[in-house]
Amino acid sequence: MSKTAVVALGGNALIAAGEQGTYEEQSHNAAIMAESVRELLDDGWRVVIVHGNGPQVGNLAIQQERGRDEVPELPLFTLGAMTQGELGSLIAIALHRAVQGRHHIVALLSHSIVDLDDPAFERPTKPIGPFFSESEATGLARSRGWDIAEDAGRGWRRVVASPRPRGFVEIEAVRLLLEAGHVVVAGGGGGIPVGRRDGVWGGVDAVIDKDFAAAELAHLLGAEALVLVTGVDAVMLDFGKDTQRRLTQVDVAQVEGHLAQGQFPEGSMGPKMRAAVLFVGHGGTVAVVTTGQLAAATLRSDGTDATVGTRIVPAADGEGAPA
Amino acid sequence: MSKTAVVALGGNALIAAGEQGTYEEQSHNAAIMAESVRELLDDGWRVVIVHGNGPQVGNLAIQQERGRDEVPELPLFTLGAMTQGELGSLIAIALHRAVQGRHHIVALLSHSIVDLDDPAFERPTKPIGPFFSESEATGLARSRGWDIAEDAGRGWRRVVASPRPRGFVEIEAVRLLLEAGHVVVAGGGGGIPVGRRDGVWGGVDAVIDKDFAAAELAHLLGAEALVLVTGVDAVMLDFGKDTQRRLTQVDVAQVEGHLAQGQFPEGSMGPKMRAAVLFVGHGGTVAVVTTGQLAAATLRSDGTDATVGTRIVPAADGEGAPA
Repeated sequence: MSKTAVVALGGNALIAAGEQGTYEEQSHNAAIMAESVRELLDDGWRVVIVHGNGPQVGNLAIQQERGRDEVPELPLFTLGAMTQGELGSLIAIALHRAVQGRHHIVALLSHSIVDLDDPAFERPTKPIGPFFSESEATGLARSRGWDIAEDAGRGWRRVVASPRPRGFVEIEAVRLLLEAGHVVVAGGGGGIPVGRRDGVWGGVDAVIDKDFAAAELAHLLGAEALVLVTGVDAVMLDFGKDTQRRLTQVDVAQVEGHLAQGQFPEGSMGPKMRAAVLFVGHGGTVAVVTTGQLAAATLRSDGTDATVGTRIVPAADGEGAPA
Repeated sequence: MSKTAVVALGGNALIAAGEQGTYEEQSHNAAIMAESVRELLDDGWRVVIVHGNGPQVGNLAIQQERGRDEVPELPLFTLGAMTQGELGSLIAIALHRAVQGRHHIVALLSHSIVDLDDPAFERPTKPIGPFFSESEATGLARSRGWDIAEDAGRGWRRVVASPRPRGFVEIEAVRLLLEAGHVVVAGGGGGIPVGRRDGVWGGVDAVIDKDFAAAELAHLLGAEALVLVTGVDAVMLDFGKDTQRRLTQVDVAQVEGHLAQGQFPEGSMGPKMRAAVLFVGHGGTVAVVTTGQLAAATLRSDGTDATVGTRIVPAADGEGAPA
């Protein structure tokens, strides 16, 4: 019986900094990602891929807005579903090219269950879609019931809540396909948020953190490993200071200590480290934070190799090494 | 062991005539469709749903065009993938409401395999997306390599090929989920077309007829029934003439005779009747052409009930009854 790794891949990994997001750009980036996944498969891992969708859902929201004189705009949760289609297909095609028929690959539309009483709904913070002038934004807040906020002098945007995922509607399908040996793309964009209002399921306009969604999915599947792909080789302590050092292997208690000291900023490593703690603290064997290229080597490492990424484990012998 | 029905549902069934395609409209129409599927499930059928995507992909192409100063437009096959996300989620949510937890439901991103030497690629005929002036269209033909055609005095549009589907990349996943008792949404929009060029898989800008895709999927799954949902209760012979009569049950040879006589126009019943012949002529037990509301009753019928839809069977005792 193979072990399972859930790989969380940023939407930014498919549209790199400075790129606009043409199909050619995204396809090129997906091919690089697919090579990293192929390496995990060659090492014998079963793989579930959770992709982000930030830049893609933003692009789609702009297009919806620009076409709205001719075509009715769709709700944000439907745009999320559309990016699952876009990126699920992109990733599946890239993986087919990488594995050359040696594995089945399937992308599932996935709905994340959210609690409509989640405190996140009381203070929506995640900006989404195009920028507006203050008066346009105020008008849209009135006509569409949006929450709006100013974005660092660049204009006004819609903001939505980012609740915690509390399960996946399609979890049994993911489990079944994974056990049959398929590479499964699921939980894209953190999942399409659905909630139960008066006993009836419906879509919810919200943004779910894809690292948390991946941690939840990995936990529910009983996966051994959670791979949080990022743009840097490893997590640093005292980032940018004289005392900066590379984290090779840390345990959950140590990460919690570092989080409490503010070592990992919210806009960067914070959510990844908390997702890692969530997974490893609830039975996972290892979470790794590193680039796609170093993912397989970091999983293979015994925790002493300072040339690979960061491993978060239930209990480690030591931590940190000079950077 | 339950029997399997593959249900083909038009994209028009979700955006009705005169509707613009708001989420509320599509959600309302999906709820009606879901009741018809629930009836099939209550009768003990395993169900695969293949949806069309004509109006939805057209809307998306318009939005892509209107936003192109800010966001790069994506290829047509990617728009197809996005409508699989949009409609797969819409249909899944509607089914969850209808079956109230009694069935697992899952929508798969599905890629249809096309042959790049298919003769359809020599004469693209399917119009897609927004209308342009002749000079705009000529410019786009040059800059994007589009085929273009004039559309009955309403302007110029891009036209693409409509090749035959020759298999589905995700067929094993569909089979596995179906056997485990899931209701499966697959092959949406006829599937995302992929072909092999110089040994490498890639997306192809084409439109696949969803009735043919459903017939192919039903054949590959060894399904007993193919349900081709349409806006009228039953197929008519001599439509609009004094001799008009309702087809209650016909066999493949009879349908082929009627097709040869031009009884079923290409823009209407023609593709459905040819899809029915394809399925029943290759081992299927029955294909039915009727509304969603009459689907279950038509499958239950012994072929003598003139109040239900049209049944196409391998060999029938008689055909036609006065309308």
